[in-house]
Order: sequence, then structure tokens, then C-alpha cells
Amino acid sequence: MQKELTDWVRPEIKKLVAYPVANADGLIKLDAMENPYGLPHSLQQALLQRLVSAPLNRYPDPGAKVLTKILIKQMDIPVEKAVILGNGSDELIQLLVMAVARPGACLLSFEPGFVMYRMIAEFVGVQYIGVPLTTDFNLDMAVTCEAIKRYQPAIIFIAYPNNPSANLFNADNIEEIIRLAPGLVVVDEAYHPFAQTSFMPKLTEFDNLLILRTVSKMGLAGIRLGLLCGLPKIINEIDKIRLPYNINVLTQTVALYVFENITILEQQASQIRQQRSRVYTAMQAISALEVFPSQANFILFRVLNKAADNVFELIKRAGVLIKNMKAEQGALKHCLRVTIGTPEENDAFLAALETALN
Amino acid sequence: MQKELTDWVRPEIKKLVAYPVANADGLIKLDAMENPYGLPHSLQQALLQRLVSAPLNRYPDPGAKVLTKILIKQMDIPVEKAVILGNGSDELIQLLVMAVARPGACLLSFEPGFVMYRMIAEFVGVQYIGVPLTTDFNLDMAVTCEAIKRYQPAIIFIAYPNNPSANLFNADNIEEIIRLAPGLVVVDEAYHPFAQTSFMPKLTEFDNLLILRTVSKMGLAGIRLGLLCGLPKIINEIDKIRLPYNINVLTQTVALYVFENITILEQQASQIRQQRSRVYTAMQAISALEVFPSQANFILFRVLNKAADNVFELIKRAGVLIKNMKAEQGALKHCLRVTIGTPEENDAFLAALETALN
Repeated sequence: MQKELTDWVRPEIKKLVAYPVANADGLIKLDAMENPYGLPHSLQQALLQRLVSAPLNRYPDPGAKVLTKILIKQMDIPVEKAVILGNGSDELIQLLVMAVARPGACLLSFEPGFVMYRMIAEFVGVQYIGVPLTTDFNLDMAVTCEAIKRYQPAIIFIAYPNNPSANLFNADNIEEIIRLAPGLVVVDEAYHPFAQTSFMPKLTEFDNLLILRTVSKMGLAGIRLGLLCGLPKIINEIDKIRLPYNINVLTQTVALYVFENITILEQQASQIRQQRSRVYTAMQAISALEVFPSQANFILFRVLNKAADNVFELIKRAGVLIKNMKAEQGALKHCLRVTIGTPEENDAFLAALETALN
Repeated sequence: MQKELTDWVRPEIKKLVAYPVANADGLIKLDAMENPYGLPHSLQQALLQRLVSAPLNRYPDPGAKVLTKILIKQMDIPVEKAVILGNGSDELIQLLVMAVARPGACLLSFEPGFVMYRMIAEFVGVQYIGVPLTTDFNLDMAVTCEAIKRYQPAIIFIAYPNNPSANLFNADNIEEIIRLAPGLVVVDEAYHPFAQTSFMPKLTEFDNLLILRTVSKMGLAGIRLGLLCGLPKIINEIDKIRLPYNINVLTQTVALYVFENITILEQQASQIRQQRSRVYTAMQAISALEVFPSQANFILFRVLNKAADNVFELIKRAGVLIKNMKAEQGALKHCLRVTIGTPEENDAFLAALETALN
């Protein structure tokens, strides 16, 4: 019998729907945890001079050696650890999952959590175990320990702070998980500039710990650069399946320049943290909302006594795109998520929110 | 019993060695099929103006819509077909292999051929079948048809022209393979600007045919951009496992600008084709070499009556890096490969070659 052509595609993939990205044309974009600030004009001009001499016709340095060196310094990575760069941290998650994808291997993470852990497990064909958080988005240690013992996960992903809930899990709980885990534990610190606390110093204490970072939330989402640090003998295995030229010449050039001038991104992160306080306080004063504490550059909130879908649409109609978690039940029931923008963007959001709730 | 941490990594990966990239510091670089020409100054300045307004703090357009549209036009892609972009064609090969990686699936290609087909099959955990070419690097149709019938490959990769041999396989033979193949057939046209013949028009004839292209050999190896075209219902499945922001803002900006000004790259390709004739003729006049015909931007040649390793080292000592195929036997026995450079670089290579052989 003649097969259909798409029957050559794995059935799990045929069932998938591609990752949806909302159209933000003409809207204030507070949906994707982007830093709202660009580079200042003076830095931009100097960066362009660097880009002029970037050899576009040559393959990039496959080891991105110069860039890696400055990242080690600026991110306080212990010198005896190894680092691998990815085309966004997404690519590094994919490499990690591919590396451990033996028959029967599973990936454990927490729900609600960053959707790419589950999606990439599906892409690669590894079982995904989503352990539910408590209703206030903390680790449920009894359930977690039980799941680790039962499933013996090859790899555990812990977002720190968590997305979409924006909180930091209890650090002692995380250490307990790292000790209990039979395999690798990845602490994903994508939102580190807004949390200002890190498991990086713990790398020297735990051999099975890996730290994932990205420059996306720091203000460079457009260049796609993530990094993974950990024990050299583990990183070396991951590096074997990295496509050799994954970080292009432009990304290497821009990232190097920006990290040489990192103060500007640090100042921007500081402004965002201040704005987060202001937006959080303003939202907490609204009785129709349950607002969750944030250590990231976004705030999760629940709409009480109104249809969240409606509130989302009204905010959008007022010109502000946020994220609708689209949950009718469970921990994210009636929740929306807003990214912290510039003071003006936040004003626009708060005004739109107030109107939408009235 | 406590497992070693690296025991969580798949055993096939532990056995791998990472893709080696030669150090080219201070050498004339004729090892990697790069276009030796940069963009002319006038284009460079205009491109920088585009890059100034590229929003580095925002995630890239996940569909790269504007860029895709111009690629469809400039590459004569039939309008009813779909296109997906990759971070280099390497990433697209990986997505294709992941998509068909059912238990027992296999990938068939030809030996000697592009090493990434085999390597990526290993990364993903799919069996690789390497069908030997004839000693003059053509398709051995008896062996090929037998292998297709026996292994029923989910996917077949055909490099057109082939790397490292630089020749075009017989087009009728390729059509026969496409007809015989039970699954997908990818014709990889990485060297299309130098071959000027294509299976692109055949897309409308064969539903199981996919065409892979890259801008790397056209003069943009540094930006990492590949594209895959074919039947929408197949491309849509591949697109589901693509990481959503795989083509960064810088790559989209540069590629769009360059394709708006594509004539310059076409002129460069024409110069390279002329230089290829000249270098080929000069090499053919050397009796100590067997030189293979080229439809690409590189030439494969065999060193007769001398140690190829020695010749390679002497050429390198004279300041020119080419590629040593490092084969003591088989079809590539004592073969070296040189990329066509600028007239001056080719002069330097030919002089170094002559000295090395004397």
C-alpha cells in the first residue's frame, strides 16, 4: 500500500501545532518580555563601525572564542567551568534534550512553566513530566520528590524566576532537587537581570548543575544568543552535537560590543525593576485583580469577576498587546501577563487596564 | 549503583568527536568554499543604515515574511510551493531528520558526500546509509536502486553539485531516484551559483522532492541562512519543530538588503566561475595531479606519486590553507580540495602547489 508522503513524519509531530506568535503591528508590545529600550545613539554608531569590518562572506568562529571569554567575565562564570553558546537558549534546550534522548529517557519540569521545555521534548521525542506547582506557584516538594523518585528524569529544568508566574522558587528547595536528581538539573536564569540572584556560584558545589542564560531579556532578543555553563565533561558532550556555525558573525560582533559596554544594559534593567515596582503597586490597588509578586520583567495577574478574554481584548483595542494565558481553570485560571515597558508604555497599559475593567 | 553523570548522554554521542574546524589565522583561506569577495563599499554603507534601524531588543519576525518573499522571487521558487528558513542549511537538515526520526527510520546519501548528512543522522539517532559513488564520483544506479529497495529510506539527500567531488550527478539518474524513493528526496543545491542548473523547476513535477539552498557559498557564510522549499503540506510539518525565532534580526536585515541588490553576488559568482576555469586548466597541466571536473566553487584533486599530507603541509607552510581529505584509500585516496578564491589568492595557491610538488 502506498503511504501518504506526510506519513514519513513522526505521528507526534503531525499532531503538533506550530508555536503561535501574536501579530503586534501598530501595538505597544508588552507580550514577549522584551526590553523596551534600544541602544543609545552613541553606542549604535560605534557598533556600526564594528559591523563594517565583520566578514560576512566568511563562516563565523565556530567556538566564538572572543565572545565566550567576555561572557565568562561579565556573567561571573566560575573559570573552571565550560560554556557553550546557542542560537537563543531555545537551541541549547534542544541540544540538551537531544543529548539525553535515550529510549525511555524523560524530562521533568514544572507546570505552569516555560512552554518550550515541553515543546522541545515533543520535537525530540522524549517523555515530558510536568509536575504541578502549588496554587501560589511554588514548588510542591512532596509531589516533586515523589516524581523524581518515580520517573528518574535524565534532565530537570527549573526556571528561576519562573515563567509565566514571575516568582523565584525557594532556593533551598531547588538545592534539594539538585541533590535528589539522578541526572542533570538545568537552572534557567533567563530573567536574571531582574531577579539579581543566581545559582551560578553553586556550579562549583554541584556537578550535575547547569546554568542557562540568555541575552534576550537583557535587551538583545533580536540577536538570538543563549549560553549554558557547567562541568566541562558534560558541556563537551553537548558541544559535539552543536551545529558548528550556530552563532553567526553578526551576533558575535554585536554581543561582543554590547558586553564591552554592559553598563548600559544594567542601567536599563535597573529602570525596568523600578517600573516593575510602580506597575505592581498600581495594579495591587485594583480590587478586581489578583496580582502575583514578580522578580522578573513581567507581571502575572488574575482577573476577578470579569471575563479575562474580554479584558485582554479591550486592552488590545486600546493599543496595548499583552499575553492572554487562556486558561479557564487550573493555576492560570483567568490570568493575563504583562511585560514591563518604558514609563510611557506602562502608563498606557495601566490606563487601558482601568478602562477595560470598568 | 551510582551512574556517571555523562552516562545520561546517549552512547552514540559519547563516541562522537566534535566537527573539526581548521585554524586559518594568517593564512589565505581556501578551505571552506567561502566567496572571497566582501560587499563593495557603497553597498556596505547603505546596509549599515538598514542595520541602525533593526530593533535588536525585539524578537525577530518568526516567519521572516519579507525576506521569504524576496527569496521566492530571486530563487525562482514555484509560487505554489512553501519555504522554510534555517540558521544555515545545517539546521534545516537537522529539522528534516528530526521530523522523520521514527523508530527504524533511515537516511540514505552517497559517499563520499557532505559530512553533515551522516553527522546529523548520528546527532538525531537515525540510521545512516552511505551508498558508494563510482570511482569517478557518479551515481552507481544498480547499487543505489538496490539500497533504496532494501532500506526504504525515509529521506534521501543528494548534493547537486556534490561535495567534496564538485561534480553534478546525472540528472536523469536523480529523477529515477526521486521516482523510486518511498519517502522524501532532498536535492541540496548549496553550490547552485556555480553550477547554474537546478531541480527547482522539477518541484512541480515531484511531490516528494525538496530543494535545499544556502546563501553561504554566494558570499554570506557569516550570516547563516539556508532555505528549504517543497510541497506546503510537508514544509508545514517541518515548520512545526522549527524553533520560532531561528533567523535573527540581523540576518533578516542583511539578507533582505543583499537580495534587493543581488546582481553584485551574481557578478561575484561569475568571476569565481571564470577563475575556476583558469585554475582547473592550470592544474590539469600538472602531470603529478589527477584533477576532477568542477561545477562548484572548489576543485578536488589527487596527488600522484607523492604523499598528499606532505603536499598539503607544504602548501600551508607557503601560507595557503586548503582541505586535506585525509584518505589513504578509497575514492578520495590522496585527495586534496581547494576553494576558488580571488585571482591573487589563486595565483598564490598555484605557486604554492607547484613548489610543493617539486
